[in-house]
Amino acid sequence: MSKRFSCKQETLTASLRGHIWIEGSEGTFLGYGRIALLERIREYGSITKAAKSLEMPYRKAWFLIDSMNRQVSKPYVVTSAGGRKGGGTWITSEGEKAIAVFWKIHEKFQKFLKRQGNAVSSISK
Amino acid sequence: MSKRFSCKQETLTASLRGHIWIEGSEGTFLGYGRIALLERIREYGSITKAAKSLEMPYRKAWFLIDSMNRQVSKPYVVTSAGGRKGGGTWITSEGEKAIAVFWKIHEKFQKFLKRQGNAVSSISK
Repeated sequence: MSKRFSCKQETLTASLRGHIWIEGSEGTFLGYGRIALLERIREYGSITKAAKSLEMPYRKAWFLIDSMNRQVSKPYVVTSAGGRKGGGTWITSEGEKAIAVFWKIHEKFQKFLKRQGNAVSSISK
Repeated sequence: MSKRFSCKQETLTASLRGHIWIEGSEGTFLGYGRIALLERIREYGSITKAAKSLEMPYRKAWFLIDSMNRQVSKPYVVTSAGGRKGGGTWITSEGEKAIAVFWKIHEKFQKFLKRQGNAVSSISK
């Protein structure tokens, strides 16, 4: 306890940060990672490619999608198996809506963080 | 890609969650963990006891306090070395202000999450 803490005579440049997620019956239901995955699936039409683009193991991507789908009455991601091209994967309209709502809340959250940033600056003096 | 996703016919009970922190020049400056540590130091007047009560190694507690102190012009935690009782540790008024401001922002954040919860429920149908 004899060591003194250093304390520089500098002004604190502080900013308020945060993140949000939606919790469901199984824990996390939607967060930034899952939204990114949904958007990549929309882009590539493939879980394999979507997962690869996020440097995420396929098994993890599959687990995340299955977790989302299991928590809603209509799935967010659907796949068609088989066929000459090996099937396809796409985002349903419910999934699209979820993405849109999430980003809308995120946008409001960013505004909230910016507004509250004034309070933060009051503690740095 | 042949494995189908399961999808239960259940209503999603979703809630919006999140957390916030204040970032300074060194990365995290204040977050829930650091606030808890400050409050325990206030309670126990000792970093050792505060750390123990949070099941945190003493070195980590010391690092966190030093990190806070280094980022502000007036320290949040001060210690007096030596003396028959081995010195003491307490929170300065600047530290107290930081704790109060953080909880105030947290409270507003909880209200924000509650308000936005309505938007969340719209994606679960």
